[in-house]
Amino acid sequence: MYFDPVEAMDRAALEELQVERLKKTIDNARNSPFYSEQLAGFDTADIKTASDIAKLPFTTKDDLRNQYPHGLLTRSLDEFVRLHASSGTTGTPVAVFYTQQDLNTWADLMARCMYACGCRESDTMQNMSGYGLFTGGLGIHYGSERLGMLTIPAGAGNTKRQIKLIRDHNVSVLHIIPSFALYFAQKVQEAGYEIEDMPWRIALIGAEPHTEEARAKIEEMMHIKAYNSYGLSEMNGPGVAFECLQQNGMHVWEDAYIAEIINPKTGEHVAEGEIGELVMTTLTREGMPIIRYRTRDLTRFIPGDCACGRTHRRIDRIAGRADDMMILKGVNIYPMQIEQCLMSMPEVGQNYLIELVREGVSDQMKVKVEVKDEFFVEDMRALQGLQKKIAKNLCSEILLTPHVELCQSDSIPKAEGKAVRVIDRRNEE
Amino acid sequence: MYFDPVEAMDRAALEELQVERLKKTIDNARNSPFYSEQLAGFDTADIKTASDIAKLPFTTKDDLRNQYPHGLLTRSLDEFVRLHASSGTTGTPVAVFYTQQDLNTWADLMARCMYACGCRESDTMQNMSGYGLFTGGLGIHYGSERLGMLTIPAGAGNTKRQIKLIRDHNVSVLHIIPSFALYFAQKVQEAGYEIEDMPWRIALIGAEPHTEEARAKIEEMMHIKAYNSYGLSEMNGPGVAFECLQQNGMHVWEDAYIAEIINPKTGEHVAEGEIGELVMTTLTREGMPIIRYRTRDLTRFIPGDCACGRTHRRIDRIAGRADDMMILKGVNIYPMQIEQCLMSMPEVGQNYLIELVREGVSDQMKVKVEVKDEFFVEDMRALQGLQKKIAKNLCSEILLTPHVELCQSDSIPKAEGKAVRVIDRRNEE
Repeated sequence: MYFDPVEAMDRAALEELQVERLKKTIDNARNSPFYSEQLAGFDTADIKTASDIAKLPFTTKDDLRNQYPHGLLTRSLDEFVRLHASSGTTGTPVAVFYTQQDLNTWADLMARCMYACGCRESDTMQNMSGYGLFTGGLGIHYGSERLGMLTIPAGAGNTKRQIKLIRDHNVSVLHIIPSFALYFAQKVQEAGYEIEDMPWRIALIGAEPHTEEARAKIEEMMHIKAYNSYGLSEMNGPGVAFECLQQNGMHVWEDAYIAEIINPKTGEHVAEGEIGELVMTTLTREGMPIIRYRTRDLTRFIPGDCACGRTHRRIDRIAGRADDMMILKGVNIYPMQIEQCLMSMPEVGQNYLIELVREGVSDQMKVKVEVKDEFFVEDMRALQGLQKKIAKNLCSEILLTPHVELCQSDSIPKAEGKAVRVIDRRNEE
Repeated sequence: MYFDPVEAMDRAALEELQVERLKKTIDNARNSPFYSEQLAGFDTADIKTASDIAKLPFTTKDDLRNQYPHGLLTRSLDEFVRLHASSGTTGTPVAVFYTQQDLNTWADLMARCMYACGCRESDTMQNMSGYGLFTGGLGIHYGSERLGMLTIPAGAGNTKRQIKLIRDHNVSVLHIIPSFALYFAQKVQEAGYEIEDMPWRIALIGAEPHTEEARAKIEEMMHIKAYNSYGLSEMNGPGVAFECLQQNGMHVWEDAYIAEIINPKTGEHVAEGEIGELVMTTLTREGMPIIRYRTRDLTRFIPGDCACGRTHRRIDRIAGRADDMMILKGVNIYPMQIEQCLMSMPEVGQNYLIELVREGVSDQMKVKVEVKDEFFVEDMRALQGLQKKIAKNLCSEILLTPHVELCQSDSIPKAEGKAVRVIDRRNEE
């Protein structure tokens, strides 16, 4: 059961559709000041397969800033009905413009996302995120109405009223920011309600990076199924990729976007399944098409078919920002690779720390890992075994063997705010 | 030029349309638990003219509270896509449900309002009100997109960013809360900009009661034309009545609503042009029709035709709440009548105070009036003349002659927050 049959389209036909739409997108984009120049030397006929997209130049966030506000628009301002803009408190903002048709397409994509994780017309959806210029609020709102869910535009804050609305109106779907979810679950209990008695079933979580562990905790504490969402304003907002009931990666809607994963240093495509920077091209946006946009978000394609039957490829949870990439002995390594590897081991505790050091002419990685109390036993052989196991697992992920140091839980200082996971000491005296 | 030709429909045809729609509304309403009981003894065939609406029972806010949440719904919950609710921090909230068609109708009405005051597809509208459960935010937003304006969902707050967006995107229409408008104008100047250089042209103001003087001040300080809006969540939200370019009363969209004005004590219709409580009936809402809703808002129909050519009757600016009505010697008097009368006189200053006192068996009204410095002269005859003039003007408005006392400007203590205009001492010892 799909919201749109295109979700399960045969791959060959899907790629044909992509080629057709990519060509239309290129020709449409030429109507904008930016792309008319950027694509001046490019012959649309050179696009024969979807992979020919690699012949096109990238578009960067700096391009969007330099072209602010109108450089990417393909038609006159009259034809646009919505504008979202980044806050631009630091530097020039980025503005995204939508025609009425673009809003319709976006709402359809968003409805498709929510349907994929089990939302139905008979559900009641409480939108607990802020509205306004943030695309997450209105994006989810329009998609929810399009799907036919009873939509409560609760907005952010006011926990007491949120709880009353949820109980009074039998709310089955929440759109909630991950970091707020656990706080909210606690408030529900403090207000004297049993979590099991709350009518919710599905949480749509996104907007913030969060780990698989955070999701597991939300699901456990809230007695809910939580589904991960990916989107960015430059590509409309939410609705770019979303998890299905399998909860194993987010399907990118490939009839509406071409997704590529590149090595952020070389710009070349990485091998299938490898982590790299996500690059996105709009295929159905008429007012402000964007070609090969460097999202700076790191992820990988999840190999293989999804059990849900959707043929659109899945991307993994965002593994950080391209700017976080470390290069060690010529190998690209992302902190999130190490985190995922460590957190998949039952012996590993809450915290870890990566240090890069220079020993003579050679760079080394040291990984300090907290071990859960029940595994931190006075048995040297067991600990050495664990140390080796961690080093081996890391090596199979990052292709070089780090020096692993085990420590007791809570022995690595916790950062206030954003955790510091990597310390690069290679250029210290 | 109208957004919808129905705005200039011949009165007779309009009333025929009202009768037809009222009958449909009654029959549709019978599908709800509340009205199936309320209208059990009523024969729809008894509606022959629009004025036959007076045969129907009123619906009050208490009814809506008692029926919370679903008592007025005519169809199953599946068919609704939006819910707005009053905060309900005091007592049971009121919830309003919309089907997709109801949202469409609402957006059309709202677009019609904005068109009437000069907004066009080529305009850019910055929505500076909050979103969420408040119907003013999403109501204006959907109407603006429907009209085809480039809509910036800026939301409330963040003055600096609001100014940047307005300048960067050549914003010509603002939706702004009246009490925020003057503060905002000041902030624009403090930020170093000339008001004359700001690109705005039209301010949509509503959501809060405000006086004609407040509007004049906004227009003067902001170099803008400000148009008044009337609406309430029970009747969708904004979009019920709106000013045209004449700025002389708000056209009630009579193809979508039947408006009546009644004496709040007797429930009878008042004479044409008299102030009373506005009673509203929805004619085009399918999911949650409401019949003869007692708004508690005081206003009057403005007699005569409007120069704009729209045939839909105009209501005056809201003159307070029905609960504010005073009865003196059997005459109904509203504080706003006195305010309007006083403020129309050039000699009168900023402030006034109404006192009701009992003298023997007879009730009296005393009105203390601040006089502008230039008129507060040491000329007894002039002052007595002014006193008489005020008393006479008031008498022609409220049909009895109050005792008028003149005083210097700033001699009546200013209240913090809501001004106290009436002190009833009749039951004091």
